Amino acid sequence: MVGYRLVSREYCDKPTVVDVLGVKIGSGAPPVIIAGPCAVESREQLMETARLVRDSGAQFLRGGAFKPRTSPYSFQGLAQKGLEYLAEARKETGLKVITEVMDADSLDIVAGCADVFQIGSRNMQNFHLLRAVGRYNKPVLLKRGLAATVDEWLNAAEYIVQEGNSNVILCERGIRTFENYTRNTLDLSAVGAVKYFSHLPVIVDPSHATGKRHLIGSMSMAAVAAGADGLMIEVHPTPDTAQCDGEQSLNPSQYLNLISEVVKLAHFLRTSRASYNEFY
Amino acid sequence: MVGYRLVSREYCDKPTVVDVLGVKIGSGAPPVIIAGPCAVESREQLMETARLVRDSGAQFLRGGAFKPRTSPYSFQGLAQKGLEYLAEARKETGLKVITEVMDADSLDIVAGCADVFQIGSRNMQNFHLLRAVGRYNKPVLLKRGLAATVDEWLNAAEYIVQEGNSNVILCERGIRTFENYTRNTLDLSAVGAVKYFSHLPVIVDPSHATGKRHLIGSMSMAAVAAGADGLMIEVHPTPDTAQCDGEQSLNPSQYLNLISEVVKLAHFLRTSRASYNEFY
Amino acid sequence: MVGYRLVSREYCDKPTVVDVLGVKIGSGAPPVIIAGPCAVESREQLMETARLVRDSGAQFLRGGAFKPRTSPYSFQGLAQKGLEYLAEARKETGLKVITEVMDADSLDIVAGCADVFQIGSRNMQNFHLLRAVGRYNKPVLLKRGLAATVDEWLNAAEYIVQEGNSNVILCERGIRTFENYTRNTLDLSAVGAVKYFSHLPVIVDPSHATGKRHLIGSMSMAAVAAGADGLMIEVHPTPDTAQCDGEQSLNPSQYLNLISEVVKLAHFLRTSRASYNEFY
Amino acid sequence: MVGYRLVSREYCDKPTVVDVLGVKIGSGAPPVIIAGPCAVESREQLMETARLVRDSGAQFLRGGAFKPRTSPYSFQGLAQKGLEYLAEARKETGLKVITEVMDADSLDIVAGCADVFQIGSRNMQNFHLLRAVGRYNKPVLLKRGLAATVDEWLNAAEYIVQEGNSNVILCERGIRTFENYTRNTLDLSAVGAVKYFSHLPVIVDPSHATGKRHLIGSMSMAAVAAGADGLMIEVHPTPDTAQCDGEQSLNPSQYLNLISEVVKLAHFLRTSRASYNEFY
Repeated sequence: MVGYRLVSREYCDKPTVVDVLGVKIGSGAPPVIIAGPCAVESREQLMETARLVRDSGAQFLRGGAFKPRTSPYSFQGLAQKGLEYLAEARKETGLKVITEVMDADSLDIVAGCADVFQIGSRNMQNFHLLRAVGRYNKPVLLKRGLAATVDEWLNAAEYIVQEGNSNVILCERGIRTFENYTRNTLDLSAVGAVKYFSHLPVIVDPSHATGKRHLIGSMSMAAVAAGADGLMIEVHPTPDTAQCDGEQSLNPSQYLNLISEVVKLAHFLRTSRASYNEFY
Repeated sequence: MVGYRLVSREYCDKPTVVDVLGVKIGSGAPPVIIAGPCAVESREQLMETARLVRDSGAQFLRGGAFKPRTSPYSFQGLAQKGLEYLAEARKETGLKVITEVMDADSLDIVAGCADVFQIGSRNMQNFHLLRAVGRYNKPVLLKRGLAATVDEWLNAAEYIVQEGNSNVILCERGIRTFENYTRNTLDLSAVGAVKYFSHLPVIVDPSHATGKRHLIGSMSMAAVAAGADGLMIEVHPTPDTAQCDGEQSLNPSQYLNLISEVVKLAHFLRTSRASYNEFY
Repeated sequence: MVGYRLVSREYCDKPTVVDVLGVKIGSGAPPVIIAGPCAVESREQLMETARLVRDSGAQFLRGGAFKPRTSPYSFQGLAQKGLEYLAEARKETGLKVITEVMDADSLDIVAGCADVFQIGSRNMQNFHLLRAVGRYNKPVLLKRGLAATVDEWLNAAEYIVQEGNSNVILCERGIRTFENYTRNTLDLSAVGAVKYFSHLPVIVDPSHATGKRHLIGSMSMAAVAAGADGLMIEVHPTPDTAQCDGEQSLNPSQYLNLISEVVKLAHFLRTSRASYNEFY
Repeated sequence: MVGYRLVSREYCDKPTVVDVLGVKIGSGAPPVIIAGPCAVESREQLMETARLVRDSGAQFLRGGAFKPRTSPYSFQGLAQKGLEYLAEARKETGLKVITEVMDADSLDIVAGCADVFQIGSRNMQNFHLLRAVGRYNKPVLLKRGLAATVDEWLNAAEYIVQEGNSNVILCERGIRTFENYTRNTLDLSAVGAVKYFSHLPVIVDPSHATGKRHLIGSMSMAAVAAGADGLMIEVHPTPDTAQCDGEQSLNPSQYLNLISEVVKLAHFLRTSRASYNEFY
């Protein structure tokens, strides 16, 4: 349908580069790495992971203090305690923190430790929340809804930008299809589609998309080759004991191996592919 | 996965009957009719529709004062004014009112005119909102998310019931599939599936599901034959001038014709099908 | 896209009634019942089922002699032996026989016992086979492909009709979606959509669509109320021992109970709903 | 479900390398390039494209002489004439030819010009055809069905291999989902999934998958980075005049630019990524 305007290429043909306290996300900048556990589970788990993430050269720490879960009886996150651990990890490692905010009432407390607000897939069309983060002076990572078209996703971004906050980063994390081997179907074409229609940066989350540890490596490489502006990867000191989504978390050595490959690929593409944007 | 408990057949095998100020929704009661415009557009439009709905024998008036729209530039509803018109229509016609609430902050003002809170598809997993209506003493109509499994839908209901509000009515309104002739694909099997797993009542919205006026009649009949506890139908005095979703609204004579057929069918099924529940 | 012509309402506004040796399928005729086992497994199994089907008042016996199976190691049907049993059952009971033909080379041998050729979902766009049955003087039941749009389905029918065989009956049997509780998602809106665009009759197969015994009753009733021209139902003397799809087969008493309800409903609709076609 | 055996990693852990007259497809070999027009339209069009494809360094020429089309009134291919042009192009350029075979009866005539038989998406579960090519001594490219799971796809390959022909190359070409901006949704995770479960090689067709010229470059790069054993690309001397699928065809300069980038990327990955297979 196309009901968006401010996020469109027609409105601004120059790619937006979102600056998070000096770290740049967007066209022209090397792809950023956002890594960490699915959920903050304990002080030890988070600090150990944060140091690993810092040592890998990544720029961002991810980790959920508030977890949206299908069942009310599943682990819902450590909430306030989780935020405190994130703040501590940020302070010690210097990593920027991305964490999910699930409702407008929690914005202020989440803002205390978050450098980027994450809006999860289930909230992609929670317009009240979109407007609320749109009035906040903090970058927003907007995950694609699990059955959202690219058009609907860009319209959701428009709700944020229209309120005054133009620092929106999109995140492709898989869509729901009939295929049930993978948790979702990673739609890498969306990277190119977003860049065709919009000036906003777009990153890829292969962990939630595939839900399978053995696919994260190839999908991370593919995402970077497709032109993604960053990756969001789940890593856990001991995936087998994770309280949620352990099946899709890398262990530390797998993670370090992957980051090393990804960085080399990104470097190659930047030097080789001067003409990339003139493909067509 | 099955993460719900209170809404399950195992917890309570007796079907829940939700009582809305004397109107009963659920197994054993005749299917209820909920009708009205997609959006409240003006005092005149709403009052004219409300009288028609009342005269048809329906029990509920529907109509959105707050409209969740893909684009921020589409008509967003009359908000406070819309609620006032709904209150007036309720008073004049005696119809019960169902209207959407999009965020927890609006619960009190919506409660002023609503006899049933509607949670829309996009908010089916807005857990903050689910918990908030769960703490309110008012029935809730929970629409199925457009890519939600029956399992996820029942878990969403569990979030409400777990907070203390057991008056939840489920509403099947079509799921998103590859088929693009219809707006969504009405999943009538969900009626039987819900009744198999849960004691909660379930109604059907053929208007949003099909998005095509000419399919609403056959899908309404099918829904009643499938055992739905009610229908939610869009009707508009002049569909061609509707501010949203006119293509799926019936005009007054189509609507009256349909209700007449539906009532006859429901009566036949109740008298004939004494043995229905012993099908299997 | 609309690439069909001969099957369209524009070409012929009068509903086609397919006559199978005196049994009429199509608008105006009572819905036909096609019943039998998923696969022909033995002479005894087929004869016992055939007598049950005849006694229920059904007009058609179904049963696969050639079974399209995902794995080459699954039971592939009794082939020639299965056809012989079908021929014998037809002779004894007087039922018409519908059975699947999987390739053009088998048309002649299948024709020996079949009154109607069935084209399965996987072959809906096997154009070679469509053309071959189009040149045969025998009615064809064309199942919808599991990811076929209504438009593609009608185009597949056009391939048959264009070759000269206008006796095509469409069969909705569920489409593939993200929902995995049911085997497929029964798309009952397709009944109305087919009748809107085409003059061909359309029946419904709730057994393959839902894959769940406890949903077949409600979906059969819904299909008839939606205006389907017939039902295709799986019944097996002992579903628990069935060689394929036992989970979706009714046992004899469930089957007889269902047919009794369906016949009453169809009768009610025919007498009550004189004005049905004038809904809109 | 897993009903396959011969194509599984359990049966043979060593990756299969299919040798087409000296050109190797499979793990360890550089990714092959298969390029050409969607359909053979004329002698001039095909010869011009074939020379371009040869000059680009590609190993295979693609082009349909028999075209499976949704509507019987769409261009169905040049048939016998098309095969003759393919044979001539093969002779002049030395390229290997891949072309679709739509039914078992045409195997012999297609074999006259084809070095690899292509089985199209609509025929992925045409078991008669699968068995027929399984008895032929010629490699087979098996496209994934548009709603086929990876499991069903591998089972389809099993039908071929079980008959004695183990030279099967899989081809991911997009699956059908709700997203309608792209023609299909390219499922690149399938590359890793296939390699995890099977020893067969797998290539990617970004042209049919995306249906959008501007996405083919990024998806080709992504496919190679994901570990695909080859690419199948549509190129046309003058896409705007193409008789089918012009919107997804590259013009010659776009094509040459893309191949150059892809070759560089493949070279980088082979030299850099010695440890790729030890990712996990």
